[in-house]
Amino acid sequence: MKRIFEIDPWLVQSHELHPEDKRLQESLTAIGNGYMGLRGNFEEGYSGDHLQGTYLGGVWFPDKTRVGWWKNGYPEYFGKAINAPSFIGLKLSVNGQPVDLATGQFQDFSIALDMHQGLLTRAFTYVVGETQVRLTFRRFLSAEIRQAALIEMTAQALTGPAEITYAAALDGNVSNEDSNYDERFWDPLGEDAKAQTIQLITKANPYQVPRFTVLLKQALRLNGQSVAPQVTTTPGALSAAGTLTLAAGEQATLEKDVIVLTSRDVAPDAQGQTAATFMRGLQGQSFDQRLAAHTAIWAKRWAQSDVIIDGDDAAQQGIRFNIAQLFMTYYGEDKRLNVGPKGFTGEKYGGATYWDTEAYIVPMYLAVTPPDVTRALLQYRHDQLAGAYHNAQQQGLKGALFPMVTFNGIECHNEWEITFEELHRNSAVAFAIYQYTAYTGDESYVNHDGMAVLIGISRFWADRVHFSKRRGQYMIHGVTGPNEYENNVNNNWYTNTMAAWVLEYTLARLPKADPAVATSLKVTAAEKAHWQDIIDRMYYPVDQKLGIFVQNDTYLDKDLRPASSIPADQRPINQHWSWDKILRSPFIKQADVLQGIYFLNDRFTREQKERNFDFYEPMTVHESSLSASIHAILAAELGKQEKAVELYGRTARLDLDNYNNDTADGLHITSMTGSWLAIVQGFAGMRYDHDQLRFKPFLPKAWRHYSFKLTYRGRLLAVNVGAKTQLTLLAGPPLDVEVAGKMVHLEVGHADA
Amino acid sequence: MKRIFEIDPWLVQSHELHPEDKRLQESLTAIGNGYMGLRGNFEEGYSGDHLQGTYLGGVWFPDKTRVGWWKNGYPEYFGKAINAPSFIGLKLSVNGQPVDLATGQFQDFSIALDMHQGLLTRAFTYVVGETQVRLTFRRFLSAEIRQAALIEMTAQALTGPAEITYAAALDGNVSNEDSNYDERFWDPLGEDAKAQTIQLITKANPYQVPRFTVLLKQALRLNGQSVAPQVTTTPGALSAAGTLTLAAGEQATLEKDVIVLTSRDVAPDAQGQTAATFMRGLQGQSFDQRLAAHTAIWAKRWAQSDVIIDGDDAAQQGIRFNIAQLFMTYYGEDKRLNVGPKGFTGEKYGGATYWDTEAYIVPMYLAVTPPDVTRALLQYRHDQLAGAYHNAQQQGLKGALFPMVTFNGIECHNEWEITFEELHRNSAVAFAIYQYTAYTGDESYVNHDGMAVLIGISRFWADRVHFSKRRGQYMIHGVTGPNEYENNVNNNWYTNTMAAWVLEYTLARLPKADPAVATSLKVTAAEKAHWQDIIDRMYYPVDQKLGIFVQNDTYLDKDLRPASSIPADQRPINQHWSWDKILRSPFIKQADVLQGIYFLNDRFTREQKERNFDFYEPMTVHESSLSASIHAILAAELGKQEKAVELYGRTARLDLDNYNNDTADGLHITSMTGSWLAIVQGFAGMRYDHDQLRFKPFLPKAWRHYSFKLTYRGRLLAVNVGAKTQLTLLAGPPLDVEVAGKMVHLEVGHADA
Repeated sequence: MKRIFEIDPWLVQSHELHPEDKRLQESLTAIGNGYMGLRGNFEEGYSGDHLQGTYLGGVWFPDKTRVGWWKNGYPEYFGKAINAPSFIGLKLSVNGQPVDLATGQFQDFSIALDMHQGLLTRAFTYVVGETQVRLTFRRFLSAEIRQAALIEMTAQALTGPAEITYAAALDGNVSNEDSNYDERFWDPLGEDAKAQTIQLITKANPYQVPRFTVLLKQALRLNGQSVAPQVTTTPGALSAAGTLTLAAGEQATLEKDVIVLTSRDVAPDAQGQTAATFMRGLQGQSFDQRLAAHTAIWAKRWAQSDVIIDGDDAAQQGIRFNIAQLFMTYYGEDKRLNVGPKGFTGEKYGGATYWDTEAYIVPMYLAVTPPDVTRALLQYRHDQLAGAYHNAQQQGLKGALFPMVTFNGIECHNEWEITFEELHRNSAVAFAIYQYTAYTGDESYVNHDGMAVLIGISRFWADRVHFSKRRGQYMIHGVTGPNEYENNVNNNWYTNTMAAWVLEYTLARLPKADPAVATSLKVTAAEKAHWQDIIDRMYYPVDQKLGIFVQNDTYLDKDLRPASSIPADQRPINQHWSWDKILRSPFIKQADVLQGIYFLNDRFTREQKERNFDFYEPMTVHESSLSASIHAILAAELGKQEKAVELYGRTARLDLDNYNNDTADGLHITSMTGSWLAIVQGFAGMRYDHDQLRFKPFLPKAWRHYSFKLTYRGRLLAVNVGAKTQLTLLAGPPLDVEVAGKMVHLEVGHADA
Repeated sequence: MKRIFEIDPWLVQSHELHPEDKRLQESLTAIGNGYMGLRGNFEEGYSGDHLQGTYLGGVWFPDKTRVGWWKNGYPEYFGKAINAPSFIGLKLSVNGQPVDLATGQFQDFSIALDMHQGLLTRAFTYVVGETQVRLTFRRFLSAEIRQAALIEMTAQALTGPAEITYAAALDGNVSNEDSNYDERFWDPLGEDAKAQTIQLITKANPYQVPRFTVLLKQALRLNGQSVAPQVTTTPGALSAAGTLTLAAGEQATLEKDVIVLTSRDVAPDAQGQTAATFMRGLQGQSFDQRLAAHTAIWAKRWAQSDVIIDGDDAAQQGIRFNIAQLFMTYYGEDKRLNVGPKGFTGEKYGGATYWDTEAYIVPMYLAVTPPDVTRALLQYRHDQLAGAYHNAQQQGLKGALFPMVTFNGIECHNEWEITFEELHRNSAVAFAIYQYTAYTGDESYVNHDGMAVLIGISRFWADRVHFSKRRGQYMIHGVTGPNEYENNVNNNWYTNTMAAWVLEYTLARLPKADPAVATSLKVTAAEKAHWQDIIDRMYYPVDQKLGIFVQNDTYLDKDLRPASSIPADQRPINQHWSWDKILRSPFIKQADVLQGIYFLNDRFTREQKERNFDFYEPMTVHESSLSASIHAILAAELGKQEKAVELYGRTARLDLDNYNNDTADGLHITSMTGSWLAIVQGFAGMRYDHDQLRFKPFLPKAWRHYSFKLTYRGRLLAVNVGAKTQLTLLAGPPLDVEVAGKMVHLEVGHADA
């Protein structure tokens, strides 16, 4: 654990700069607007260790690297989120001395990310001999004009006079730290000094992956007025320079406005003209006016989603940070995008889309964003159905296999034990359809596009199982379950359970769905009978004596022992143990059997839940950022309140406290829903199966009260849990809600009973 | 199957050049001398598709490429056999037209590899307008002066006159086809036009792997006299040019003598001078004199190893080709080298040393080469013991883990399911010690260096097993057995069996070994007791009903079916099926349970052998080149003569008939022992356990007779199997041999009974 920012309900703020934690600072002060994002790099540059990172949604590159002996069915390439041309550059010098916080002298440093809207503010007094200049930077990526980045620098000569030079830069000469051969991913197409634009294209590739053309345009305003600086260009880069001369006490404000366009939206030829139009529009208002509009958009988001925790400021900050970062990553505007595990905060992990979306993002987004945001995440999978058929076909299998990692529907990660063995993502895609339908009551997706997805996945499972003659049962061999600390196991209980569930759900929904879907996909009676046979004769590993579902065949033969037996200096084991030792150990990375019990919660008895929780949780090391939340929810359900609160602590401030010692690489975006899920589904016990919203709340001992909001079937609901639980219907038609086993009738304007 | 060379007992010869099979031709006409080797590339160059390949023993490069998510315990690099600077180049033109068989006009082509000694001869008549020139090339790599390559070209003007230019080249500008980023592995150090040398060094690397400096020197002789050609240089390359003018009927012979030195033997600074000394020595005799000396060395080898098959010319050619290629790859001169799976014939597969050495090379080399050749292979492992301890330590394990793939003892392949799961190589290293000791009767290795190896391996196994409390037995989880068509299985019967065998053999040999070894390695009574406990309580998967040893846990749950059920157009499955489909199938790549029965042959009953053979062989697809021989031997033992002969056919001409459709990449060197093993251990039923040489021969129906020679404990023995079996002791003291259950007394000069 390492905490470098101060506790504050709305700010992520620090008054110190620790060079050894520069990367951590950059991750925690990353901002994004769903269209693009960047790490908390400094505008003026920084010569010490840091990770430069600017990322554009949907802009990527297929890395050709292969090792070992490539085999049939392996993906052809590894999809990389590439570092995009940088647009924040604003080189500065004071009286001839370059401004560089790695080498220069400075004081009164502060940096703060305002979570109300993702405004990053930074200030320091730079000292050059007798001269002291106060430099204040503000920047945000507009939620109003998503192609726009607004950057403002105010310089005030505290002691003077000061001659300050600036050089506002656009720079396409960027690299990825994770490139194998230090290769660059961008080719410059041209620079226009007059228009202050640079245009670049991603390098050619042999995989039919489209090349992306990006244009960056900047314009400067000095004290609100346009300036015409000295512009110089080099291939792929541009710099616009000028000088400010300030007497003591004087100040000046330089604004750098940026427009970023990509060929995903604007054809390369039209980018220059379109960017000029955008820039004119953007500069029609001041920085502060644009910020106000941006903040207003965010205020609406918070009105539907804010969580208040009274009595634990660290927890309060943690959950707001998570919600803010999630919304900065994805708010559904572009249906071709998804929620990457690092969002716009780092280059680690290839690809954009993981099962995280369906397993962790959907359950929260359903309740805190307008329904069309979650619907967009579902639609994304349907739009990539052709890729899923391709992926299955690559394995010689029928039906649709949604990718483990992808940008476009085609699998783009290259470890076999992951790509064609971690099949749980396929059922999660189906389960998200169930969740969306069950929560919203909106059947329009499951009855049309969603049914095509369900049929595709069902066909995959029907081909992927095999029939064991010896046992007379269907089995699923060769998978990696949610517990990635085992690979290539047979009959992972979770995978088998969810595969049968998909077949069951598809069969159950088919009669209600648009018949045209089943007809066009030629679903026959024989096929449905085969699906039913698989449901009826699926093999599930269980141990009667222990009364548990067994994680997979032979799991119980391991040297079973609790995670508490691991010496503290060997945790996390993934940073201390060989992969061999981890694979053979009984230790579980994240919920596996328990993930199934979480998903299909209403199908298991309390005793089943308890026995499995008590068996598996002690062996779980929670080294996936996705683990603690699911366990917290089940612990809460089982009345293990202390355990639930302990596990909540691990999810709420995972990044702010750098629990896994890897936040320097970027934030754990997709697991940020965990703290919300732990509070709402855990502490408040929210469930919504069988068309009934229910709560079974408890209040953690250390908290005075907590409250959250839910969007549910056209209502906006406030839930306040203190000494007692109070529900308030803020908008929408009346609703009956079950609270701790009793029905409560809610109407707008009426306090509940 | 594809056969491009003619059947001949001593020649691999063709009178046609098929451009579409150029790579296959190059593999089959590769030559080597244990120090270096090269593919059958053409001296004058070839502009069509081909694979340039020259390889120097022990010269390699650590490739840094990583993909996916690197984890603790993965090797840092992938060791690559790199394409070395080429020394055969002899560009030619006839009347201004470059000689290039890909584009020019030619007739009466022939190419022949003489297996007596590895002399490659090639001839064709090149036609330029009215002019016809007969060009004949001969080359060999000397067994007498191993640093020397001798290349001779004779040009005869059939119709004239002809002006022939030549440019003899040394060229370091070579690449590897398997490099990920088309990177070059060599940096030029300098060229000396006068001395006709080039010197290069392998590129720097961050892994403490030494860089190799190589010097190539050439000198030309025209009709036996030194010539001083026009020498030009470019970085890393050199060319020596001249002109021959021939009237019709005239001929001239140009000889290119080459010396190749590496920093493995000669310090870089001394290489120029040393090469000059070598060159003077080399040129002290003519090409034909050197060839005679070279051939004499080979004649001695053949006298100890030749196999004669009467009645099957294709089989005769196959076994001689295999023996010749094996001896061209390794004859024990350099104890730092080993037998790579492709020898000097291709760049496929990284590394130099696989378990192939102990599992397949040792059993044959024991009997056909002087004992010190096999002893050198054993010593190689002892000399790399430090690397083996390092490999185990990388996995967090005690003891010695010999590498799956290596150049220097340190694991250098980078697929986890191979490097730290294919543990059978570790037991094979121990088993080779047993084989050597049992065959030769020489206990000097097992009692000294060999004991240190055995203790290291035993300690590894004692740490690698785990105790299953539920079963009360020791288990080995997470391995890939010899059947590489399953990965990461639990309790592979073969692996468990051989691990226990190693412990047993070590305990049995310890009392007889040099006590200093056990003392210096601090073997305690407690440690020995623990080894015995593992032997006593090892878990072996068996199926009582089927009466078989089970390949691994849950293997019997698969969709079991015979390989004959695979449609012919889907064979080999590794070229048609996804890895996913292969892993989940019941099909076996190579002997797995049966490999254990082969190794520990005297421990199993005939019924056990039969039941396991009948169960596993039908599911075996023999897609490892190492598979058919082991099955042939067991089939022969079980009286399944037709099956044995069928399987022999797959091993004897694997490359000559391109059975696996991959010989274009290079020869399957290490599996070339398979045909010898099938004849000697299979058809002739040779066994040598319990200090008794035994035979139980049969004669394949299609053959008239076959004979082979064995070196055994100071004797040279000839075995001739026809209508009856005849043994002749050619050299050494008298010997009692068991033939078909009866003891036969052999003395030199006496025919056997």
